[in-house]
Amino acid sequence: MHTDTLLPFPETTQHHDLAASYEVVRQYTEDLCAPLQLEDYIPQPVDFVSPPKWHLAHTSWFFEEFILVKFRPDYERYHPDFSYLFNSYYNHMGSRVVRTDRGNITRPGVEEVYRYRSYVNEAMRQLLAEGTSAELEELIILGLNHEQQHQELLITDLKYIFGHNPIFPVYQEGFSLTEVANTESGWASVEAGIYGIGFEKGDFCYDNELGRHQVYLEAFEISKSLVTNGEYIEFIEAGGYGDFDLWLDEGWQWVQQYAAQAPLYWHQIEGTWHQYTLGGLQRVNPDSVLCHINFYEAAAFAAWKGMRLPTEFEWEAASPQFSWGQRWEWTHSAYLPYPRFSKAPGAIGEYNGKFMINQMVLRGGSTATSPGHSRPTYRNFFHPHLQWQCTGLRLVN
Amino acid sequence: MHTDTLLPFPETTQHHDLAASYEVVRQYTEDLCAPLQLEDYIPQPVDFVSPPKWHLAHTSWFFEEFILVKFRPDYERYHPDFSYLFNSYYNHMGSRVVRTDRGNITRPGVEEVYRYRSYVNEAMRQLLAEGTSAELEELIILGLNHEQQHQELLITDLKYIFGHNPIFPVYQEGFSLTEVANTESGWASVEAGIYGIGFEKGDFCYDNELGRHQVYLEAFEISKSLVTNGEYIEFIEAGGYGDFDLWLDEGWQWVQQYAAQAPLYWHQIEGTWHQYTLGGLQRVNPDSVLCHINFYEAAAFAAWKGMRLPTEFEWEAASPQFSWGQRWEWTHSAYLPYPRFSKAPGAIGEYNGKFMINQMVLRGGSTATSPGHSRPTYRNFFHPHLQWQCTGLRLVN
Amino acid sequence: MHTDTLLPFPETTQHHDLAASYEVVRQYTEDLCAPLQLEDYIPQPVDFVSPPKWHLAHTSWFFEEFILVKFRPDYERYHPDFSYLFNSYYNHMGSRVVRTDRGNITRPGVEEVYRYRSYVNEAMRQLLAEGTSAELEELIILGLNHEQQHQELLITDLKYIFGHNPIFPVYQEGFSLTEVANTESGWASVEAGIYGIGFEKGDFCYDNELGRHQVYLEAFEISKSLVTNGEYIEFIEAGGYGDFDLWLDEGWQWVQQYAAQAPLYWHQIEGTWHQYTLGGLQRVNPDSVLCHINFYEAAAFAAWKGMRLPTEFEWEAASPQFSWGQRWEWTHSAYLPYPRFSKAPGAIGEYNGKFMINQMVLRGGSTATSPGHSRPTYRNFFHPHLQWQCTGLRLVN
Amino acid sequence: MHTDTLLPFPETTQHHDLAASYEVVRQYTEDLCAPLQLEDYIPQPVDFVSPPKWHLAHTSWFFEEFILVKFRPDYERYHPDFSYLFNSYYNHMGSRVVRTDRGNITRPGVEEVYRYRSYVNEAMRQLLAEGTSAELEELIILGLNHEQQHQELLITDLKYIFGHNPIFPVYQEGFSLTEVANTESGWASVEAGIYGIGFEKGDFCYDNELGRHQVYLEAFEISKSLVTNGEYIEFIEAGGYGDFDLWLDEGWQWVQQYAAQAPLYWHQIEGTWHQYTLGGLQRVNPDSVLCHINFYEAAAFAAWKGMRLPTEFEWEAASPQFSWGQRWEWTHSAYLPYPRFSKAPGAIGEYNGKFMINQMVLRGGSTATSPGHSRPTYRNFFHPHLQWQCTGLRLVN
Repeated sequence: MHTDTLLPFPETTQHHDLAASYEVVRQYTEDLCAPLQLEDYIPQPVDFVSPPKWHLAHTSWFFEEFILVKFRPDYERYHPDFSYLFNSYYNHMGSRVVRTDRGNITRPGVEEVYRYRSYVNEAMRQLLAEGTSAELEELIILGLNHEQQHQELLITDLKYIFGHNPIFPVYQEGFSLTEVANTESGWASVEAGIYGIGFEKGDFCYDNELGRHQVYLEAFEISKSLVTNGEYIEFIEAGGYGDFDLWLDEGWQWVQQYAAQAPLYWHQIEGTWHQYTLGGLQRVNPDSVLCHINFYEAAAFAAWKGMRLPTEFEWEAASPQFSWGQRWEWTHSAYLPYPRFSKAPGAIGEYNGKFMINQMVLRGGSTATSPGHSRPTYRNFFHPHLQWQCTGLRLVN
Repeated sequence: MHTDTLLPFPETTQHHDLAASYEVVRQYTEDLCAPLQLEDYIPQPVDFVSPPKWHLAHTSWFFEEFILVKFRPDYERYHPDFSYLFNSYYNHMGSRVVRTDRGNITRPGVEEVYRYRSYVNEAMRQLLAEGTSAELEELIILGLNHEQQHQELLITDLKYIFGHNPIFPVYQEGFSLTEVANTESGWASVEAGIYGIGFEKGDFCYDNELGRHQVYLEAFEISKSLVTNGEYIEFIEAGGYGDFDLWLDEGWQWVQQYAAQAPLYWHQIEGTWHQYTLGGLQRVNPDSVLCHINFYEAAAFAAWKGMRLPTEFEWEAASPQFSWGQRWEWTHSAYLPYPRFSKAPGAIGEYNGKFMINQMVLRGGSTATSPGHSRPTYRNFFHPHLQWQCTGLRLVN
Repeated sequence: MHTDTLLPFPETTQHHDLAASYEVVRQYTEDLCAPLQLEDYIPQPVDFVSPPKWHLAHTSWFFEEFILVKFRPDYERYHPDFSYLFNSYYNHMGSRVVRTDRGNITRPGVEEVYRYRSYVNEAMRQLLAEGTSAELEELIILGLNHEQQHQELLITDLKYIFGHNPIFPVYQEGFSLTEVANTESGWASVEAGIYGIGFEKGDFCYDNELGRHQVYLEAFEISKSLVTNGEYIEFIEAGGYGDFDLWLDEGWQWVQQYAAQAPLYWHQIEGTWHQYTLGGLQRVNPDSVLCHINFYEAAAFAAWKGMRLPTEFEWEAASPQFSWGQRWEWTHSAYLPYPRFSKAPGAIGEYNGKFMINQMVLRGGSTATSPGHSRPTYRNFFHPHLQWQCTGLRLVN
Repeated sequence: MHTDTLLPFPETTQHHDLAASYEVVRQYTEDLCAPLQLEDYIPQPVDFVSPPKWHLAHTSWFFEEFILVKFRPDYERYHPDFSYLFNSYYNHMGSRVVRTDRGNITRPGVEEVYRYRSYVNEAMRQLLAEGTSAELEELIILGLNHEQQHQELLITDLKYIFGHNPIFPVYQEGFSLTEVANTESGWASVEAGIYGIGFEKGDFCYDNELGRHQVYLEAFEISKSLVTNGEYIEFIEAGGYGDFDLWLDEGWQWVQQYAAQAPLYWHQIEGTWHQYTLGGLQRVNPDSVLCHINFYEAAAFAAWKGMRLPTEFEWEAASPQFSWGQRWEWTHSAYLPYPRFSKAPGAIGEYNGKFMINQMVLRGGSTATSPGHSRPTYRNFFHPHLQWQCTGLRLVN
């Protein structure tokens, strides 16, 4: 039940024509970059944001290192330094550029990175034409899903770069990740009982969704709509950012350290709330779904309403009863392994498991998520203080 | 099934003679300080450790501010500045000395803090003699449990202070928190099914144990013994601290930042592992239960064994089948609210709920825990990088 | 007695045809950027380094804000945001982009910054054509000297950006700031007596050179040559970086914090010292003049030789006796005001005076300095730990 | 011309009865500690402040390590760990406790440190009774001057500890380091010419005063009085802390980082300036000499007056014309070596020379300085941001 998006997103990748999917996904990354100037590809303003150039290169690196080097014995890497330069966090794959230095690597330049992409694409096309084994198909599908994740990061990272430029550059007129309206209202009821949680069947899932298992849930009611900007403005105007009693202790420290007063990208101009969007600065629409809050803000808002966030299990059990995908939704579940979770051997095993600490699960999807990329069992995760993804919340009563 | 301890701990506080319990618990805090020199009461070597003097004062502050000021209208505070100086983290109770400054406040001196304790004790005795309401009794029991928690912190904080002095002072000859042997061996089996979790009945529990609820568990086997020093030395000698594949990503960062190579307080002297204990430096006994590891180390060790840590729910369900209390045991559960959890109004509500983020649950108890203080539903919690509590692990297969 | 340089530097600006000088200096900044790719204009890898784009814009900003806005009543700024975006440190000129954010401002792009330069140039040409007052001429000459200073920073900042890229990009084949040989040898003697110090007559000087005054000097001998790479390698091989006795206390802390073992950009490859140059990685030539050392290294080397650095007064008094300009030379003088020093009113007064603390004076010039820019009374200054300028040393016996 | 002080300071040590001097100086350190409680000996609230216990021990360590171990072959150290524990910054003397850990070392306790002092004293008495060589006498006099320096640090460090305790403990009723009045007024004139600078003759000086040399000075007028609190309040009330134009760049950063608004220990209470003194909180006396300002504040005040600070050479040349010793006076001279300065070999050589960077010279003395300790050629030095010494300023016109 993914909602419409404002972007001409590609069709789902979970089909059977892998070669076509490959083209669609790879092309879409480049389409996202079409409105950029060369300069925009370079900076890394903060450690958790990566330069667009790096996303372009790293997604190609994934196909080169995990697939081409392994499955095409005669494959020659595009450049011997790239396996070092564009590794992200895979310790198995050797040393890598320190994360905070990504923005200082001006060479290879953007054009060469595009040549790198073409080179990898050409080799992948040959590989796909030669026919694929089940193992290889699985890896290619993983690579495409990996690239889709970086598509979402690319657009949110770019928003961070532009949103911290005092002149607020426009990525594309009228483009907004945040103008999404609720299509439903009211509350869905879920009865107490045992529910099955985790991926069951379908074309693809990440390893962190496996281990289908039973969870006992008490009865609860969950909102069919997401919290809106207007509701959040009420929280702000009621002094929510100044009342320690609503906040987790580390959330209150975050509020004080950053003098937080509103979601990321919000600016109060002559008494009216505005927000930076990729289409430029605009007034905050009170009817649109709230975006760019961190877990601390989500939990404080819920406390102020006298309600709470759903657990990821409640969310998954209730998900057939509401539409989702407008916005990643903070849950009150820590990102931890499911029963029988085990890491794959080697570098692929570093994909998810090693991040299962100090992060909270988000469910759903957002306007920046490629359609078909998410599903009801999808487990997204971020540290509780981070705001730069398209994150909102849904209440449980 | 709390095991014997090395300290002459007071009897349990969960009895019906509250006045007697009050005396026992309050006296025990002072008994713990008997071997100290005046200088030892003062320092705060790191932000998470508090000076012994501060523990003495803060536990009295709790009775003064939460009970005497409220229930004895004619009560006069011992000193007007103390409500400010000895507040820990209760925002409801007004401003407080910044946590990292606790070690720089030399006045009031230790003697005056003892006078403060006597003054509060005298007033509490009168209050207890006058008869108590249910609400008041509940608060006093909370105050005594609060003081027992600080007793454990006092002795572990003191170990931190002494353990970071290059001359390794002796607190008391022969005293050791770490010389504990397993009394059982083998594995306990738990069948798949629904289990009740959370506090059911008894004299006292914290609010974070309430919300008795059902949890579905898959079948598992859990060790009846804790991991020993000898087993952990095997992990060290197998290069466990050098193999990133065993560690969570943030755990690996911790290893590298601190060049971690062994549990806290361990020193390799001429090829043999020694550890600082409150009885002085001594050889590590391979048969004793492992202590002073953080969650990252626990999880890495389990990964190396090809096993895992129990969840807090598995631990609680299996707990009738093994003895516990030798050592706080890291579980693989994040510290989060149980169903129907709600904070009490006012300052008492700050006791537990606001810390429910970025911490992991520990179950059991330790040689530093006052007997009767813990119970099978008790939820202790610390950040995953901290080692200075008496922390070990139990494996699940 | 400025030596030849490797760059086709423009002729001196201290002539009487100001309009011609304006063209030469402004063009040279752009010439320096000719070998760049667009990506190279963007990053700021460390707070003391600025992006090339920023240098291009800021030098234009200087003419716009200090001259055009003031002397051409009808002048319209190129863009209202630029006075904010491209201010460096002039508090009088209003708020500015925080220094560490300079590398994250991708828009305005490089092309637009060049248009900004053209726009300013056009307005300056008209102003120059209309005839200039003495006050205006003085400001224009200041602006050109300011731009020359940024030319030197531009090339050294670029070296820092490229020199920290693991693939060591080439700015221009054969281009090296560091391949300079001594042309003289032996020692110059200076007799005890009173010497005049400070700017006396000529076309231009900075305010920090004014206040011509007398200084009494004891007799000394000063080397006619600069220390070479070969001599410094002897110091390294003798264990100079490991002997605390040779270092100032804060220098020794710097050595330990950064595990310093050699000048900036030096790498030992299979036992041989190499250095990154703007022409790529190359072997260190033992006969070339030493470069990229900080004051701590200069002082430690001199201590190891049993000698010392000259004071800036000794250097100035002896300067007619040796050739200079191959390399900025650390002196043993702190950067402090001369007698009768006074700041100019307003923003121009922020040029030099407010930096007169915690910095050391350098005398001479380097291969990156525009010819004619320096003179014997010129006082360059940097913090003692910085290495990224073309800095070496001359010994006094 | 040292002025009267409020403390019953011991007589000068520059006499010929070394044994008597030894007793007087050593006793005086202990006299300073007489009003302390045991707790006060322990904390180190900030890295540049040392615990009183540490001063007591380190001054004894100096006699033990530099004299007794060397000149009494049969001498046995009091305790083998102390040479490690109580070393300050002498790299030649082996490893030492990291500076920021001094406040966490509770054992050895205060009593034992006093026993250590007695033990060292007894051995020193025997050594002195046996007769001394010139070399030995020189070292003992150095040790006594070293101890006097630590006496001043002890009392200013204690003020820092007490002054940051929210209850403002009283060291001794009526005791104040800051209540000092000017005894002179008007201006002294110094003619242009050559002046001799540096130690000429007398009983003792530090190595940094040696190298008597000539300095040419222009004519100047210097105030015979120090700036008072009242004059500084005018600066505050005129907005001095808010006007960037008065400050050095790093001074302005300091103002902003610490939101500085007044000298250290000043508090505005209901519109009136108070200051913490060792006799408790009291109103600021406008006629008393200003104290506890750093170099940045001194320079900003002078700029506001349209005047400047003297150089250390001007101060020394003018010093016969005014009384001094009320307060350490910031000069506008960086702490650098005099001509012909050379470090003594070995650890004694670490006394002064290695600190000659990034610090400014102070001349004079203060109410916390032992009488006879200072002299007109004495060069005190501190980093420009530090306020906790008894520091003021004298203007030059």
